[in-house]
Amino acid sequence: MTANLIIGQSGGGTAVINSSLVGAVREAQRHSEIGRVFGMLNGVEGLLGDQVIDLTAQNDMVLDRLLTTPSSALGSCRFKVGGSDLDQLLTSLRRRDIRYVLYIGGNDSAESAHQLALAATRAGHELQVVAAPKTIDNDLPETDHCPGYGSAARFLAIVTMEMDLDAWAMRSVEPVRFLEVKGRNSGWLAAACALGRATEAMAPHLVCIPERPFVEEDFLVALDNCYRRHGYAVVIMPETQRDAHGKLLGSHGSAWRDQYGHEYSLGTEGYLIDLVSRHLGVRARYDRPGFLHKTSLLHVSDVDRREAYLVGQEAVCAALRGESDVMVILRRTSNEPYSCDVATIELPRIAGGERYLPDNYVSLDGTSIDPDFINYLRPLVGGNLPTFAHLR
Amino acid sequence: MTANLIIGQSGGGTAVINSSLVGAVREAQRHSEIGRVFGMLNGVEGLLGDQVIDLTAQNDMVLDRLLTTPSSALGSCRFKVGGSDLDQLLTSLRRRDIRYVLYIGGNDSAESAHQLALAATRAGHELQVVAAPKTIDNDLPETDHCPGYGSAARFLAIVTMEMDLDAWAMRSVEPVRFLEVKGRNSGWLAAACALGRATEAMAPHLVCIPERPFVEEDFLVALDNCYRRHGYAVVIMPETQRDAHGKLLGSHGSAWRDQYGHEYSLGTEGYLIDLVSRHLGVRARYDRPGFLHKTSLLHVSDVDRREAYLVGQEAVCAALRGESDVMVILRRTSNEPYSCDVATIELPRIAGGERYLPDNYVSLDGTSIDPDFINYLRPLVGGNLPTFAHLR
Repeated sequence: MTANLIIGQSGGGTAVINSSLVGAVREAQRHSEIGRVFGMLNGVEGLLGDQVIDLTAQNDMVLDRLLTTPSSALGSCRFKVGGSDLDQLLTSLRRRDIRYVLYIGGNDSAESAHQLALAATRAGHELQVVAAPKTIDNDLPETDHCPGYGSAARFLAIVTMEMDLDAWAMRSVEPVRFLEVKGRNSGWLAAACALGRATEAMAPHLVCIPERPFVEEDFLVALDNCYRRHGYAVVIMPETQRDAHGKLLGSHGSAWRDQYGHEYSLGTEGYLIDLVSRHLGVRARYDRPGFLHKTSLLHVSDVDRREAYLVGQEAVCAALRGESDVMVILRRTSNEPYSCDVATIELPRIAGGERYLPDNYVSLDGTSIDPDFINYLRPLVGGNLPTFAHLR
Repeated sequence: MTANLIIGQSGGGTAVINSSLVGAVREAQRHSEIGRVFGMLNGVEGLLGDQVIDLTAQNDMVLDRLLTTPSSALGSCRFKVGGSDLDQLLTSLRRRDIRYVLYIGGNDSAESAHQLALAATRAGHELQVVAAPKTIDNDLPETDHCPGYGSAARFLAIVTMEMDLDAWAMRSVEPVRFLEVKGRNSGWLAAACALGRATEAMAPHLVCIPERPFVEEDFLVALDNCYRRHGYAVVIMPETQRDAHGKLLGSHGSAWRDQYGHEYSLGTEGYLIDLVSRHLGVRARYDRPGFLHKTSLLHVSDVDRREAYLVGQEAVCAALRGESDVMVILRRTSNEPYSCDVATIELPRIAGGERYLPDNYVSLDGTSIDPDFINYLRPLVGGNLPTFAHLR
């Protein structure tokens, strides 16, 4: 007896998230228990609105090309399901004779998948719900790392090396440079910026991580020290960096007041540029590559792409084994040579959880990265980083 | 009788500026009239401070690697020479028996080179000063295009295609996206964002150019139209975009007032996000890749790299022919198949000039790009752009 399968993508995209989609579609096609393979457009939000496409109808060329197409090709959403949504989702699934649901996403998506699995059990609806991890933030618990992280890390490592070249060359104009790293509450991406640092004289000179409060005095001492020694300084700054009071940098009110008396803040960028100008007396610049580490095709890690595919395949296999309310995880079985296998873990152990960067991975003053972290990260970013020439 | 040569880099870097450096060094090594090849660290500012290195001493591996090292490996400056600087520069050159000066840079650097050439003539100092063009902005007059532009254009074209994927996928969250393009007063880079646009439904939906004032009402009509038709909209926004009064967007005072009565402005980003929120009632996001189009190794155009090398070689040849106060230019001799040759032109015809995007290249409402521009740009960005799969 065959039943159908549906796949959704949710949350922010990654450069390899479609490899998980293709891995799942191709694995599903190998099993006679699975009839048609559907795709939700824009995750559960689309399924609620009955926006569903038939992926079985896609030809091989499209699937091949999806392997090198960044961001969620099915569209995405940021939508937490609950209440009557769940009944509506179950009705929609039943109508299409869908017994297998794969949901590719991060923490919030895992929570949605968990809620759907619980609702199915309550309703006596036979449904296998399997989550496939993806997140550039690498903050899902229990898994060695998350598909999407390796490519984002590769992007940031290379961009930091390139910022080093630019910052050094332009040091007589703007000697202090900030590179903002988007993300959530963990320092996995910020620390990755140090992967290509060949010598202590090179960027990143300072790495801030969200796990550790930003202390103005300490930061200025460390920055001044770097600037004096090297003539320039590159600082990695998470967009979620907070101070000791838990406030985002520059978010304290009172920088400005409008005609109604509302207070406005400088924002992180304005705050930091002003801070450097006042205390070091030099110009600073704040760059914000934004979404690029989630989408840059040319920075994709081949290891990351392969693992994203594998995770999609395993999600199908787990569903066919009758598992539900689980997420696929990666387990590192060896570091040299690097190898990972896949397994599954109960969603309640994942959903809502966040994994932080181990405290020892970045030195207290932010100037150095522990070799253990480099060893952890190196295999995930795939091929060699570029080697640049210096005439300094 | 041999004399020495010195090379400097000036202004903002490009991803291929070191290819001009290597082209010049290798060409110089082929001519017995040239003794040693020096490099100014940080352009004329470094030469004034006697920061000079011997490039003759660099081995082949370093030179090879410089071909794939973005940004100015000699360091750069933003420094206009004049007055007593010129005498000091001539003294420094004479002391090192330098008769040939190559200066790789954009508009301002061409002006510095011109001033140096004039000063040498006035002083009866035998000196050949040749400028080699580089600028991502593509705004130097007389040359078909500028080395550095092709790679920056390739970066922006690919990033816009990737932003299209991300913006479409996340359209239920942030349906309006701005991509800021750094640069000067011309729209060459902004227009390049449209190179990979396969259909009218895809990004960029609107292209603003600095040559054309931003008119709020017209912009909102065009944006609303795109958003309604496609469910999302990607807008290319030059950082130097001005309104009909010549003011940078969002730079009008009075958004906030500090305790001393000073007025503060929203800035371009704040202004545009607020504008979209108030008039379309949806969230907008403003991304600012910043310096990356000047430095991204993986986005280098092979054509651009080859031409940068050629321009460096020709600068040496021109100096040896006894030319001075000139800049090397590229002349397109054929578009299909594409070919360019090199020539030189008097610096006074370049220095201080700016070349703007022809008005017909971007439609008045910003929604379409003239095929003539695509034909102009296509050969400059090198190999094919990626082809992405869509499940829309």
